[in-house]
Formats: sequence, C-alpha cells, structure tokens
Amino acid sequence: MKIALAQINYHIGNFENNEKKVIEAIHKAKNSGADIIVFAELAISGYPPRDFLEFDDFINKCDDSVNRIAKECFGIAAIIGAPTKNPQVKGKNLFNSACFLAEGKVIFKHHKSLLPNYDIFDEYRYFEPNTVFNTIDFKGKRLAITICEDIWNIGDDLLYVGNPMDELYKQNPDLIINIAASPFHYEQAERRRIKLKQNVNKYKLPLFYVNHVGAQTELLFDGGSMVLNSQGQIVDELNYFKEDLRVYDLEDIERPSEISKTKKPSKIALIHDALVMGVKNYFNKLGFSQAILGLSGGIDSALTMVLAAEALGPDNVKGVLLPSQYSSDHSVKDARNLAENLGSPYETISIENAYNSFSQTLNPIFKDLPFDIAEENIQARIRGVYLMALSNKFGYILLNTSNKSEAAVGYGTLYGDMNGGLSVLGDVYKTEVFELAKYINRKKEIIPNNTIIKPPSAELRHDQKDSDSLPEYEILDEILFQYIEQRKGPKELINMGFDENVVKRILKLVNTNEYKRYQTPPILRVSPKAFGMGRRMPIVGRYLA
Amino acid sequence: MKIALAQINYHIGNFENNEKKVIEAIHKAKNSGADIIVFAELAISGYPPRDFLEFDDFINKCDDSVNRIAKECFGIAAIIGAPTKNPQVKGKNLFNSACFLAEGKVIFKHHKSLLPNYDIFDEYRYFEPNTVFNTIDFKGKRLAITICEDIWNIGDDLLYVGNPMDELYKQNPDLIINIAASPFHYEQAERRRIKLKQNVNKYKLPLFYVNHVGAQTELLFDGGSMVLNSQGQIVDELNYFKEDLRVYDLEDIERPSEISKTKKPSKIALIHDALVMGVKNYFNKLGFSQAILGLSGGIDSALTMVLAAEALGPDNVKGVLLPSQYSSDHSVKDARNLAENLGSPYETISIENAYNSFSQTLNPIFKDLPFDIAEENIQARIRGVYLMALSNKFGYILLNTSNKSEAAVGYGTLYGDMNGGLSVLGDVYKTEVFELAKYINRKKEIIPNNTIIKPPSAELRHDQKDSDSLPEYEILDEILFQYIEQRKGPKELINMGFDENVVKRILKLVNTNEYKRYQTPPILRVSPKAFGMGRRMPIVGRYLA
Repeated sequence: MKIALAQINYHIGNFENNEKKVIEAIHKAKNSGADIIVFAELAISGYPPRDFLEFDDFINKCDDSVNRIAKECFGIAAIIGAPTKNPQVKGKNLFNSACFLAEGKVIFKHHKSLLPNYDIFDEYRYFEPNTVFNTIDFKGKRLAITICEDIWNIGDDLLYVGNPMDELYKQNPDLIINIAASPFHYEQAERRRIKLKQNVNKYKLPLFYVNHVGAQTELLFDGGSMVLNSQGQIVDELNYFKEDLRVYDLEDIERPSEISKTKKPSKIALIHDALVMGVKNYFNKLGFSQAILGLSGGIDSALTMVLAAEALGPDNVKGVLLPSQYSSDHSVKDARNLAENLGSPYETISIENAYNSFSQTLNPIFKDLPFDIAEENIQARIRGVYLMALSNKFGYILLNTSNKSEAAVGYGTLYGDMNGGLSVLGDVYKTEVFELAKYINRKKEIIPNNTIIKPPSAELRHDQKDSDSLPEYEILDEILFQYIEQRKGPKELINMGFDENVVKRILKLVNTNEYKRYQTPPILRVSPKAFGMGRRMPIVGRYLA
Repeated sequence: MKIALAQINYHIGNFENNEKKVIEAIHKAKNSGADIIVFAELAISGYPPRDFLEFDDFINKCDDSVNRIAKECFGIAAIIGAPTKNPQVKGKNLFNSACFLAEGKVIFKHHKSLLPNYDIFDEYRYFEPNTVFNTIDFKGKRLAITICEDIWNIGDDLLYVGNPMDELYKQNPDLIINIAASPFHYEQAERRRIKLKQNVNKYKLPLFYVNHVGAQTELLFDGGSMVLNSQGQIVDELNYFKEDLRVYDLEDIERPSEISKTKKPSKIALIHDALVMGVKNYFNKLGFSQAILGLSGGIDSALTMVLAAEALGPDNVKGVLLPSQYSSDHSVKDARNLAENLGSPYETISIENAYNSFSQTLNPIFKDLPFDIAEENIQARIRGVYLMALSNKFGYILLNTSNKSEAAVGYGTLYGDMNGGLSVLGDVYKTEVFELAKYINRKKEIIPNNTIIKPPSAELRHDQKDSDSLPEYEILDEILFQYIEQRKGPKELINMGFDENVVKRILKLVNTNEYKRYQTPPILRVSPKAFGMGRRMPIVGRYLA
C-alpha cells in the first residue's frame, strides 16, 4: 500500500483556498500511485478555528467542504481532519474528527479522545471527547487512526487517565496514522520525535504523522510530518516551514535504503525560520504586503526589520527614524546603516516639534512638576502617532519591536512603542535577540556591529540606559525564564541562588504589568510559554504583586 | 441544624485579605448559633485564579490558607472552595474542591465533576473532573455537596454526559449544598433561579446556594446566593452586588413565615448596578482611587463619567474636554454641563496646536493626498496622548468610553479613543447606552438632555455623523446581537428579514476588526457574550471576512 502525506499551509475559515489545495494534493498523490492520502487535523477549517466553531453556519460550511472533497476521492482514499456534529443529545455539539473519504463518500469517522486544553489549546471548549474505538480496514490493511494528542499520553507525565491507542491496539491494526496540529516552539520538533518513537516502541507498528505548516496569527506550525517504521526508525521527515507532499510504500519503509538523519538545527536557527514564516503568513493571509516600523538604532528594531525584509522583501519594509533631543548621534547613524545594508526604504521624522507642542500645552497643568515617566511616554506615543499615521495613509502594517524581556517587566510604553499589528520579538528574550542578531550577521554584517555592542537604551531622557532600571539582561532573562517558562515561585528561585530582592522585584514587575500585556499585539510564539493566549493571568490579582 | 451562607467579595491571590474576611464570617456565624457556614467556590484563591493555578507556590499558599482557616473551626464547621492537589499520577494535577473543615482540620473533600469550559470559563485547563461521589454526615444530617456547574446539567440542553447529583442522590442526602462562582450577565440571575428550582423539583431536597460577589477585572459577580426549601420555594435571596451573611434553620425554611418575593429588577437597572460595582472594584483592588476620561459631549463618555462618579465619588473622576476645529459648540457646552451637574472636576485642552504640528511635519510625506482616516485617527490619538500624559503624571486610571456597537464594527481609533485601563461600556450596545442614560436621568437631569437627543458623531471631520458610515443603531444593534450573542450566520439573518447587503457588510466589519479588539482594554461583562476572554476569534481567519 502506498500512503501519501500532505503537509499544507491552511488558512482558517478560507474554505475555498483550503479545499483547492487539498484537491490538488489528492490528484497529485493519485498520479503518484498513492492508495491513500493523509491530511492534517482540522485541515478543512484551518487550526485553530476558535469560536467560529460555535456558528452552525461555519460547521455547515465544513460539512459541505468535506463532502465536495469526498467527491474527488475515486481510485484514492483520503483521511482529513474536520469538526463534525455530535449526534447525541448529551455532551458538547462537536467532535474533532478524522474523516475517511473513499469512492466519493465519507465512509468512516474517528473522533479525538484526548483534547488538549492547556497553554494555547482550548479544544475542550468545543469538542466532546470520543469514547468509541474502531479501526478501519482498507486494501487489506487495518488502520488505527488517531488525532494528535491521542498518542501523547505516554511516558512519564500522564495528563489524561485514558489512552485511546491502547483501545485501538486491541483490534490488531497494521499501522498507525496520526493527524496533528502541533504548533512550533523551539523544543517541540524534538518532543514530537520522542513521543512518536515511544508509540512505535510500545505498539511495534509503523506510524505516519501529518502536521500543519504555516502561521495562523501567533501560532506557528513548523510541519516536520514524518514516517516511522515498526522498528522505531524515522524513515523520513517532511520539510520544516514549507509545504510538502510525499508518498511512501508501506513495505519499503521497513527496509529503508537510508534512514533519515534527523536534522537538528540550532534553537536560534529554528526561531529565525519560524519568525520569518510568521511575518510572511500574517501579511499574506491578511492580504497585506508592506510593513512599517520605527527604527531606533537599537537591536530590537534592527532585528525586526531584517526578519521582515526576509519575509516580505526589503522593498516592502519601511524603516522610520524618529529622533528626539535625547537621541544620540549613533542611533540615527546605526538605523540608517541598517536600512542601507538591507536596501530598504527609510524616512526620518523628528518628533521635537510635536513634543514641544505637547509640552507647551501641558505646561500650565504640569506646572513645575519634575520630568518623569509622563514625559518619557509622551515621546514614545508621538512616535506611535506618526507610525500609525503612515500606516493608515499608505496601507502598511506596523510591526511591533518589543522583546519578551521588556514585555515581561513592562518596560515599554502602552500606545507608544508597544503599538503594532504583530509583535515579532515578543516571545524572544533580550539575550536571544543578541544571539539572533549574531546569527543574522553570520555571513556578513547586516545589522551594524555598533547596534549589537552598544548598551541598550530607550533614549527617552539624557544618558538613559536599560540597566538604570533593570538588572543586567543575563540575570533578568534567567529569572524570567524560570518564572514564566518553568513556573518557579519566589522560594524556588531564591533557593536557586538568585538574590531575594531582585527576585521579588522582578516577579512583582511581571505580575503588575499584566494590564499592559493585555493590550499588546499578538506575539509570534516560539517558546513553550509565550505571552498571549497561552498565558492567562488575572489583572486585578494580588499574587506576588 | 443552622446553616450560614457567606457571600463575600474575594480578591484573586490576595490570601491575607480573603482569609481575614473568611475568618471574620466564621466567628460571626458561630456567634449567631450557626452549626456550619458555607463559602463560595474557590473562595480561598478568588475566582478565576487563571494560570496562577500552574504555580506550585500558589497552590501551596492555598493549602496553607485552608489549614489556617480550619484552625478557626471549633464549634462550627465550614465548607469552602479551594484548588487541591490530585494525588493520582494520571490526569491533571488539581481538583476544584469543596473542603469540609471541622474541629480544626480538613475532614472531607468533594471535587467538582462538571468543569465549565465555554465562554469565559477555562476550568478544564486546570482541573481533573471528579469521578468519586460521597456525601458527608454532619450533626445527624447527610449533606450532598456540589460545586456550581455540577447541578447545571439538568433540563433540556445537556452539555455533559453525566450528572453528579444523580450519583450523590443514591446515598439519600437530606440537603444539597452548592458552592458557586457564577458571574453576572443580565439574564444570569433568572437562569440560576430556574436551574436551582429544577434541582429541587427533581430531588425534593432543600438547597443552599452560595455565590461570589464583586468584580475581578472584567468578570462581575452579582451574589444572589439563595435558599430553596424542599418544595422548591425560594425562601430567601442574599443581597445582589453586596456582601452578605445570613443564617437559616433547616427546619424553619420548610414552613417559612413568608416566601421571598423574587426581585426582578429591569435589565437596565441590573447593568447599571453591575457596571458601578465593576468600576469600583477595579480601582480598589488595584489600589487606585481616581479616574480620568475624555469628555466629548457625546453620550458614551457622559454615561461612563456618571457611572465612574457613582463608583468612585464625583471628586475622584476628572473629565477632560479635548476640542478640535471639528468640535461643535454644543459638544463643549454639553460636556461642561455634565461635569457641573455631577460636581466633578474638568479641564479643557485644545488639540489644535498638536494637530497642526503633526500636519506640518507630515505635509512633505502626505503631499496632496486627500484628508482621510489617517487625519481622523491623528486627532483621536492626540487625545490619547494627552489623557495618558495626565494619567501618568497624576496617577489616574484612564477609563475607556467605547460602546459594544463601535467595538464590534471597529468604529474607533486604536491607540486613540480605544485607550484605557478598563472599558466600562464595551459590552453595552449603543441602544442600551441610550436606555442607561435615560435611567440615569430618571429622577433629574444629570446627563444633559442635548447629549441624549443629538445625532451621534465622532466629530473627526466636518459635519460627520455615525450614520454616514453605519446603519441606524436600532438595525445595527439587532444584527450584532443576533450574530454575537445568538451566533446566527448570514443565511439565518437574511431569513430573519435583514437586508442581505447590510448583513454581509456588518459581519465582515465585525470579523475584520478582530485585530483591533485584540488590543483593547478589559471590558466589564454584562451580557451573555462579551468581547474579551469569552469570545475567542482568529485574527487571520477569512470566515465572513
């Protein structure tokens, strides 16, 4: 039997687009002699469809799409993920299903049992867990169809009480199919390989795994669909960060000519590729082509611009220098050098006139109160007004340039430099920003070296340095990582050797700045715990605050 | 047996505060002769604690707090909600529990089975569903303890397969206790009464129900704890929107001297009370006392100011008039009249100088391109800069004044009039804003009549009216309600008689403006479907867009 794996970049709710890609893949696989083609989880709707699933109209559109695709399945079968209606009175209205299409019809459905509902996942919000287990026979082989998390409850950390693959195994299947929607973070590809191998080692069956690829706002899907033979060897991996379609012979994979050498790119290379894909898909799925951003001469905006230029082409990314009386000469020079290195357009707009206008008007109200955060924020907000004015006038999307360290401790101005349609670096700590900048410059200097080596500064008052207000980034980022990604509390952090006062100050900053993060743009997710939908915190809470 | 119900305004993660209130209530109930006192669901942590639950440190603090409270329970027992650890290896780490405290110890725990995971609820994100059912005997009575949703799977629309109360009923309990965290919306109190009555009618047992009261950022808890006797009569309801503690004799409630006449305030009165509580608690739980807002002379800012004045006192709410060349005379006059009617401070800051400064600077870039949304937004954003400057300088929280109709169709400027720490009216349609304004003026004119009767306008260009860009609010709001609250699709709406073009245009506006709502402040939730955590939509989706 020949099995095709189709790794596709779907677009949520864009049935026409998704259906076209699926049907093309079916015909291509059939022409390559495939007996069956496998698509990803919820391929019909795109993942995650979120509360679109609460609309009958949306579900009917999914049904219609599945039925139209089934009509293309003659001489080839297909397995494809779709939300389907739960016919029972009790329980939620929907299942997260794998539909088996053959001879023009849906001939079998298998529903997902283990519904992830942590981090960015909300599946139990919509779907009833499956409790009925049946394999399906096709061309003399018995298939155990599973959906993503269904095969993840294995190993040490058991999040669920049951294991659907144990149930299916009782029916003596010949192979396992897993259709998935497994979003990227820099450790996820390796975790996936381990989980899949654990399954093969347990059941001694070949496993065909199909993932999504492409970005859906903040969620990035890296692809990496793969085939394991019954000995637990990874016979092949599909592309990372690209669409792909490959066909495998079920017999051949047991005696592979060569075993796929699992590529393990560095964490920084992975983050780089993921962010470029994230920017690219955000723009093309929204129908935009041009980005704008404020170029401060600092490393965050420089890195953001380079990633955007890779995603959209250098001509399509415009840098705007917005100097004030507090900007140093090198800021303007470094920003200009970056734009010129990239060959991207740039523009300079001084914020001094607008700042003076606000100052004069506020003078009778502020009287002789000292210069403080209010005046600093006015500058950042004037920059926001200019950038949004250009965005509105010319149809750019403004890119946000804040990094994760700043977002964590609230070191940024709401409605100022925290503006943007998309946050490119909001899940990248400052220390990782430096690593990414070095990675960008690995062949030649694109980001000016001075941007990388100078001490970070917001330049909102004379001689300001980030280190005036914050611990050195090496320490800050390590505490943030332990608190945010690892969920360590203050006692554990102090026991790890961090200074008690620093720990308490940082944790308090993180928690009391939740109100700022609530209003920030969607953040491309590259870590196991990003700000946004995957981290849900109270605003009025008083814990560690 | 005498049973006390304690309806308390908790503060998420503020263990000291919550514990103090709980212990005071225990002593007060004991002094009133109560044998047992009942607190709400997750009272220990406050509700919803969200991802604080993922921190071991937070759970340990909950455990410690329960144990300290238990030590106050001599001569009286207590039932109190807390997250507790799941000792099993398989499944999620926590239960959502009712702890039974007596003689200084936790002597029994019952865990929640039906975990709401829709709208604003995320309980399956954290908790393992209970599958073990035991009643507890106390002073010769057998208690069936249930937690909120555990008794809601009754009637027509069954969201879950099981029913925990059916299991407990097999052990012949004498009464039902239900501890809840049931947030307000304008229909919820009535739904609650119906669900509780359905339980009593089915099991023929008295039911003691304890809810939270108070606001936790966007979630408003209205209280309304209640007692039903075994005949299904509502014997008493505790306060709405206020803390309360009352003691009942289990025998007496079966022959009540009088049956509580269920008060059914109007929808508008309920919304009014909820919003005032929401503003008040947002400020006092964050440790702030003063609000600022932009006063346009329009009805949204006027209503927001009145509600804030009720919540914080008129002296603590400052209105800022920010006229431009497009502001009409009546706008300034109406705004001033409102502030004077309230006795609140106000200030006038013309935005013309700042606007001219931006215009001049942008002139060489915008060249002779026509005045459009870019220039309109500059004005709104300048207002945002001034308001935030005052907020930063003097420690006000800026109140957002956008209504739900505007938020739905994106009729507002991101980083401009969409700014604020809290959105007061973001879940109130424009037609409801008018009703609330009339309610405010029911005794005397507080909101100037001219503000109510003049046609709504953003005044960002000459002679602008909302009706230039939008259908009349009566039609717009009805379509929005059917789409947002009722999840009707385009076909259903057209079948209801709405114009096809209008329907398609409105739905497209709602969906393509998801990116704006993503960045807006938390919205006080008063309807069954508010923007924010309760409505989760893709940004890059293409459904109806």
